[in-house]
Amino acid sequence: MNDEDSTGPGSGARVPADDVHRARAYLLGVAEPPAAALVAFVAEHGPVEAAERVQRGDVPDRVAKETEARRGADRSERDLARAAEAGYRLLTPEDDEWPAWPLLSLEVATGRGADGVAPPLGLWVRGTVRLDQVVDGAVAVVGARAATEYGEHTAAELAHGLVAEEVAVFSGAAYGIDGAAHRGALAAGGPTVAVLGCGLDGGYPAGHVGLLNRVAERGAVISEYPPGAPPARHRFLVRNRLLAALTAGTVVVEAGRRSGARNTSSTAGVLGKVVMAVPGPVGSATSLGCHELIREAYATLVGSVSDVLSTVGRLGERRGESTAPRPRRPTDELGPQALRVHEALSRRRGRSPEVVAEESGVPLARVRALLPELELSGFAERCETGWRLTTDVPDRVISPDSVTGREERRPS
Amino acid sequence: MNDEDSTGPGSGARVPADDVHRARAYLLGVAEPPAAALVAFVAEHGPVEAAERVQRGDVPDRVAKETEARRGADRSERDLARAAEAGYRLLTPEDDEWPAWPLLSLEVATGRGADGVAPPLGLWVRGTVRLDQVVDGAVAVVGARAATEYGEHTAAELAHGLVAEEVAVFSGAAYGIDGAAHRGALAAGGPTVAVLGCGLDGGYPAGHVGLLNRVAERGAVISEYPPGAPPARHRFLVRNRLLAALTAGTVVVEAGRRSGARNTSSTAGVLGKVVMAVPGPVGSATSLGCHELIREAYATLVGSVSDVLSTVGRLGERRGESTAPRPRRPTDELGPQALRVHEALSRRRGRSPEVVAEESGVPLARVRALLPELELSGFAERCETGWRLTTDVPDRVISPDSVTGREERRPS
Repeated sequence: MNDEDSTGPGSGARVPADDVHRARAYLLGVAEPPAAALVAFVAEHGPVEAAERVQRGDVPDRVAKETEARRGADRSERDLARAAEAGYRLLTPEDDEWPAWPLLSLEVATGRGADGVAPPLGLWVRGTVRLDQVVDGAVAVVGARAATEYGEHTAAELAHGLVAEEVAVFSGAAYGIDGAAHRGALAAGGPTVAVLGCGLDGGYPAGHVGLLNRVAERGAVISEYPPGAPPARHRFLVRNRLLAALTAGTVVVEAGRRSGARNTSSTAGVLGKVVMAVPGPVGSATSLGCHELIREAYATLVGSVSDVLSTVGRLGERRGESTAPRPRRPTDELGPQALRVHEALSRRRGRSPEVVAEESGVPLARVRALLPELELSGFAERCETGWRLTTDVPDRVISPDSVTGREERRPS
Repeated sequence: MNDEDSTGPGSGARVPADDVHRARAYLLGVAEPPAAALVAFVAEHGPVEAAERVQRGDVPDRVAKETEARRGADRSERDLARAAEAGYRLLTPEDDEWPAWPLLSLEVATGRGADGVAPPLGLWVRGTVRLDQVVDGAVAVVGARAATEYGEHTAAELAHGLVAEEVAVFSGAAYGIDGAAHRGALAAGGPTVAVLGCGLDGGYPAGHVGLLNRVAERGAVISEYPPGAPPARHRFLVRNRLLAALTAGTVVVEAGRRSGARNTSSTAGVLGKVVMAVPGPVGSATSLGCHELIREAYATLVGSVSDVLSTVGRLGERRGESTAPRPRRPTDELGPQALRVHEALSRRRGRSPEVVAEESGVPLARVRALLPELELSGFAERCETGWRLTTDVPDRVISPDSVTGREERRPS
C-alpha cells in the first residue's frame, strides 16, 4: 500500500502522533490483552496520565501486575513510526472512527464481572474502510483450520452472499474456513475485516500474506497487538472476543469436537451476541463441533444467507424498504430475540432481566445485552424494579448508528 | 409364512375369531380411521354391542357420519379368514399384546380435543414379535422417498446402530429413507416394524414386497386398514400418528422443504413425543426440511445413535447397569425433558402444565404427556391446583412396563 491510498476516510488518524496516541501506543506495548485493571485505570485517569503513572510504577497493585514486566520499554515512538511507514494507523477510543457502540458489549460484560473480555486499549488498523461504519451489522464467519472442501466452499458462498447483502464479513485470517470467508467476501467486492492474534506485520499465517494485502485493500486488517508481536495460542482466544464484540453474530462453518468453536460460542454468549453454526454431513469430523453447538442450543442452525440475516435480525433491513410494501410497525426492525424480549416487558411495572429471560425464553446473557439496546432505541426504560416498556413508542426504530449520528454505512 | 411359525408369543390371537375380534374386524372395515366418535362409542358400549348398533344404524349422529357409508358391508368373516390364511392376526385392545401404554398418548390428545389422533380400533399384525414388547423404547426412522445416497446410508447406519442397542426401529416401508431404515435394522438382526397406510396384503410399495416379508420375519408389519385396502395419500398422514404414538421419538433423516416432515413433527408434538432430525450438507435439497425443523426448534439435531438415545432419554438405560458404576439417583433414568419437568415441580403446591412448561422450557404438549408418565413412575401426583412432587420418591423409576407387569422386552 502506498501513500496515494492514504486519502480515504480512515486516514484521519494518520496525523503526527499526538500525546493520546503516543500514550495508547505505549500502553498497548506494555500490557498483554485483555488487561482489565489497566483499562479501568485508563478510563479513570485518561490515557496520558495513566501512561505516565504506569511508566513510573505509580499504580495500584492490580494495574502493576498487568504492566510491571514491560513498563520500562517505551516502544510507542518506534511502533507509530513503523505503522506510518507500513501504511497503517493506531485507532483509539478518542478517535471518531472508534467502534464504540459494538465494543460497549465488552465494557458491559466486564462491568458484570465477566473475565477476559476487557475492551482493547486501542487497535492497529491497516485498511481503507472506516471501522466504525464497517462494523454496522457485520457478521463473523469462522471455523476450523483443517477444513474440508465442503466447509471452505460453504464459508466462501456465505461470505459472498452476505457481502452482496451489504453485510461486512469479519474473520480471523487463519487457513481453512477463515481464509475461505475472506476470499468469498473479496470475490463479492468486500468489505471484509481480518482480526489478528498477532501484530499487523507479523506475516502470519505465512501463506496468507497476499490475502491479507487484498483484505486491507477492500476492508481492514486489525489487531490490538503491537507491530511485530508474534502469534500465540492464547492470543487467538483473546482475539475471539473482538470478533464477537465487533459483529452482530458469529457463524461457525466447520469445527471439530473440542475445537475453538465452544470458546467462540461462550465468548459470544457472555457478550450477548448470536452464535450460528452450519450443519454438514453427520459422518464428517469437521462438522461435529457445529452439530454439538446446534444440538445443545448454543448455536442456531444456519444454512443460507437469509438464515443468517434473519437470525441476526437484519432480514429485509437493508433492502427491505424497496421490496417490502407492507406497512412497517415500529417493532418490525427488531431482531427475533429483541422482539421476544420486547414482548416480555410490561408497560406497568419493571421486570428484572432474569424474569424477562424466563418469560421470553431468550438466554439471560442475551437479555442483558438487548435491554440497553431497546432502551437506546426508545422501546424500553429502566425503572426502580427493572425494565419496562416506554409509554411513547417511537415511530421507527432508532438504530444505534442514528443515535450516535452516524447514518451512512461506509464511503461509497 | 406357514403354520409352523404360528407358535410364537404373537400367535395367541390366531385362535378362531371370537365375538370381540369379529366385532372389531367389522368396525375396522366400516370406518375410515381416525374415527374419533366411533372409538368413543366403542369405549362406552364395548365392541360387540357397538358393532351390532352400528350395523342396525342405532347410533348417535357423530358415529353415523363415520359409519353410514359402509355399515351394510360386514367383511369381518372374510377379513379374518384371509388373515388366517395369509399368516397374520387381528390385535385388539382386549388382547394382552395390545400396546396400550404408547397408544394412551392418542387417547390423551383426543381427550384434549386434538383432531385426527383418535386411537385405532384394532391393528392387523403380521409378524413374529409381541407388539406390546417391541414398542418399548422404540424409535421411528422416517424420511423422504426421493432420498440421496447420503440419506439412505445415514438412515441404514442409524437403524443398524439402534437395533444394536436393543432399540426397535419403526418406519413406514416407503421407498428411500423408510426402506433404508428397515434394511439397516434387518442387517443388525431386527426387530423392525413397518406401519402401513394400506392393507397388509396390498402389495405396496410393489418393490418392497420382499423387504416386507423379511420385516415380518424379524419384527412385524402392521396396519389398521383391512386386508386389501389400497394406499391413499391421506392414509399415510393418518398412519403417521401411529408411528408417532408407538415410538418414543421420531427421527427425520431427509426431507425436502414442504414435505411430510412438518406433518410428522406436528403430530408428534401433539402427542408430546420427541422429534429429531438429521442434518446434511446445506446445499442438499433433501436436507432442507430437516434443517428447517432444527432451526425452528421443532426438532432436536441428531447425528449419531447416542444422540438419539440421549434425546429420547434412554442413554445408558439398557446397557447402563453394567457400564455405569456410579450410584444411581432415582431421577437418573428420566429423560432430559422429564428431568426438567420434574425440576419445575414443587413439593408444596400444585402447578398447572402451563406454568411447568414456562418454568422448564419444555413445550406444553410434551409437558402434558410427561406429567402422567411422572405420575405413573411415582415422581409426581395430581392435586387440586395441578401437579406436584410426591413426598415419597421411589428408589428407582418404575417403568411403564413394570407397572403393567411386563418386565421382559421380547422373547429371546
